[in-house]
Amino acid sequence: MDSKQNILIKFGDRVREIRKEKGLSQEELAHKADLHRTYIGMIERAEKNITLINIEKIANALEVNIKELLE
Amino acid sequence: MDSKQNILIKFGDRVREIRKEKGLSQEELAHKADLHRTYIGMIERAEKNITLINIEKIANALEVNIKELLE
Repeated sequence: MDSKQNILIKFGDRVREIRKEKGLSQEELAHKADLHRTYIGMIERAEKNITLINIEKIANALEVNIKELLE
Repeated sequence: MDSKQNILIKFGDRVREIRKEKGLSQEELAHKADLHRTYIGMIERAEKNITLINIEKIANALEVNIKELLE
């Protein structure tokens, strides 16, 4: 991605915030979501334009509603 | 996509529902969102795994909050 988009920054920050609230490491979240740890890091740093299916995987792994990730 | 995923079906249905409520054609929505008409059709039919940036473009074009697209 050439430049970080605001929506991706907000989403990544929210993932990191909830992940920490739940006491999960990036590795643990990645494992629960069936995604790669480096991918979780890229999402939190807004380096990737995440797809809806992966948004759902992360929401499920964090045990929150998708809408809570888009507050 | 090999099989249509539930989350994409729900999202596509919601886009179509709100687009019709707003009295917009797929062409008109595509134009407002700066996306292609065939892409809007694929999203409504759950044939594409939409990215967060395009979810935001569609929400803005429909003049709704992203969360309303994920009800």
